[in-house]
Amino acid sequence: MARPKHGGNLQWAASIAGCSPSAILDFSASINPLGPPQSAVLSIQAQLPWIRDYPDPTYGQVRSRLAQIHAVPPEWILPGNGSAELLTWAGWDLAKLEATYLVTPAFSDYFRALNAFDATVMKCPLNEAGLGVQLAGLDFKAGSVFDHEGQGLSSLDPKFSRCGLLLNNPHNPTGQLLSRAAILPLLKRFELVVIDEAFMDFLPHEQDSLIGDVQQYPNLVILRSLTKFYSVPGLRFGYAIAHPTRLNEWQTRRDPWSVNTFAAAAAEACIQDKAFQTQTFGWLEAARPELFDGLSQFPDLSPLPSVANYFLVKVNGSASNLQHKLLKRHKILIRDCLSFPELGDRYFRVAVRLRAENQRLIQGLADIL
Amino acid sequence: MARPKHGGNLQWAASIAGCSPSAILDFSASINPLGPPQSAVLSIQAQLPWIRDYPDPTYGQVRSRLAQIHAVPPEWILPGNGSAELLTWAGWDLAKLEATYLVTPAFSDYFRALNAFDATVMKCPLNEAGLGVQLAGLDFKAGSVFDHEGQGLSSLDPKFSRCGLLLNNPHNPTGQLLSRAAILPLLKRFELVVIDEAFMDFLPHEQDSLIGDVQQYPNLVILRSLTKFYSVPGLRFGYAIAHPTRLNEWQTRRDPWSVNTFAAAAAEACIQDKAFQTQTFGWLEAARPELFDGLSQFPDLSPLPSVANYFLVKVNGSASNLQHKLLKRHKILIRDCLSFPELGDRYFRVAVRLRAENQRLIQGLADIL
Repeated sequence: MARPKHGGNLQWAASIAGCSPSAILDFSASINPLGPPQSAVLSIQAQLPWIRDYPDPTYGQVRSRLAQIHAVPPEWILPGNGSAELLTWAGWDLAKLEATYLVTPAFSDYFRALNAFDATVMKCPLNEAGLGVQLAGLDFKAGSVFDHEGQGLSSLDPKFSRCGLLLNNPHNPTGQLLSRAAILPLLKRFELVVIDEAFMDFLPHEQDSLIGDVQQYPNLVILRSLTKFYSVPGLRFGYAIAHPTRLNEWQTRRDPWSVNTFAAAAAEACIQDKAFQTQTFGWLEAARPELFDGLSQFPDLSPLPSVANYFLVKVNGSASNLQHKLLKRHKILIRDCLSFPELGDRYFRVAVRLRAENQRLIQGLADIL
Repeated sequence: MARPKHGGNLQWAASIAGCSPSAILDFSASINPLGPPQSAVLSIQAQLPWIRDYPDPTYGQVRSRLAQIHAVPPEWILPGNGSAELLTWAGWDLAKLEATYLVTPAFSDYFRALNAFDATVMKCPLNEAGLGVQLAGLDFKAGSVFDHEGQGLSSLDPKFSRCGLLLNNPHNPTGQLLSRAAILPLLKRFELVVIDEAFMDFLPHEQDSLIGDVQQYPNLVILRSLTKFYSVPGLRFGYAIAHPTRLNEWQTRRDPWSVNTFAAAAAEACIQDKAFQTQTFGWLEAARPELFDGLSQFPDLSPLPSVANYFLVKVNGSASNLQHKLLKRHKILIRDCLSFPELGDRYFRVAVRLRAENQRLIQGLADIL
């Protein structure tokens, strides 16, 4: 069976571990272990009779709720079939520019969306030198993450005058946060800045989200997703926040009903579920430092501090070997980083799970390392 | 409230009728009144625990089932977020050609998909002269449908050498069927032929479907939908049948999980539900001629014979007036044809519904006409 490109392919893991997919303890997908909220499941059940109707192509109800939550007018919000669908249309816009700068390592789907429209991609690797000095004040809080050389970008390439920037904040897989203050100047240097905030909802105050700035910058696009925080990868719901002119253009390109009835209803339930949100923040606040400490105790592992619900861990040795051993001996799946060429076999990523589950991971690692 | 572009916008109808949307008897969307099958609803309920996992990006299970049903290998099938999503990617391929011929009147979403990629569109209007003579043997069984003039196409424009053709078979809104024998020669004249067979499943034997020819013609794309036959517009599930090279290309353009978990599961249930299929064929065989006869009895109405589950009806007078009167007096919604410029206010379309409901329509018309 082929190795999965994305986290969470349990079929593949089960074939290695010799068990059923449901017996795998999955640390590879960075999904909130408390979810999905019961409110989402109930809203899907309540929606079953409406399968006979087309979804409202304006997605008016969920759009209004999102508008309230983010304090922007509804026409600045466009729901999509997962943020991946919206990334496609962002990729189209970026491809119209001369080049798009992309902070790497980057989620492989960014390359898909950019390559689909033949965008020119300029990689900005996070490295020892610190990206901050190099790219207009862009400063990840832990600058010296990666030790590879030769891919540094001393400044924006002068041969391109109209450039785009695709950022992930918090950054996946490093868990690093860019400050809003660091991003704001970039909006003056780039024709279009697309910020994937897929994990931003794990930060209770979201003070470094750029959503509050969208109405000042027609060249700013924020992508958000419900997938991680609400544990709904099967649902496919994301949204873009950007200037209405741009969103209208996207809407005339894509099909009229890109979000199905169940995704729209469950999204509406999730975003209003304050109890689930509070519970999640409480869990993460306790579980994250505990897992970090657990990982740090191994001399062969160096976890990177993270603001999100996952850790990137440098391993002294082969991460794939470790992955296989954890699967075979403990039915535990960690995320190798082979799909990030900058990281390769020396890193893995783990999600923060329930405290007892994190303990099982630490025990499994103790058995192997 | 704005007039809806597509059939089935019950909010708009309810605002005219002064009632709740659920009180409207909707003849505007051509949806099977027997559906959705209970099997689809149950499969969604059974799938709820899997919302926490990403959908299988290969959609292997539903693809295999569709492959069995259509007797093509699974790699010749690509599931999509409704056939509308797949139409987007077909539009992209068509736009690479010099021009795309489109039989009109055409579903407005065809223009969306072609315009999104700046395709050059050449309209082939169905008219008195009969399209068959004009376009390489293309022969709708009822040739003399429309009486407008001046848009005839005497032959393929010689200034374009590489052209595409986008066909709808059975044709919406006329309900006319093109024979397979009439379409086959077109595959030699056009670089790419896209056939939307969204209503083909209402024909029990599908003898004029081109699915059986796909493996002989790499320039043939068939689009299918579950929406109409299984009454699942809220679900969003369609599929393309075409050469694997083309489908792989589409898959690298679009996001990896364009069909959500519930749509994939319900699709699998629907296509195997033989009892529902048999029931539908039985209903349609009885209800369609009865509704046709009912409509034909009015001197001001001329329904066109149809192989599908709807009738296009020419009205002596204003179809919009009739639509408003039916809404206000009887809470019955018919589909005006204002979104088809070739038809305008002299035509309306009605779905075939349950026999008692069709009777209500006929009584409502009798009250007004």
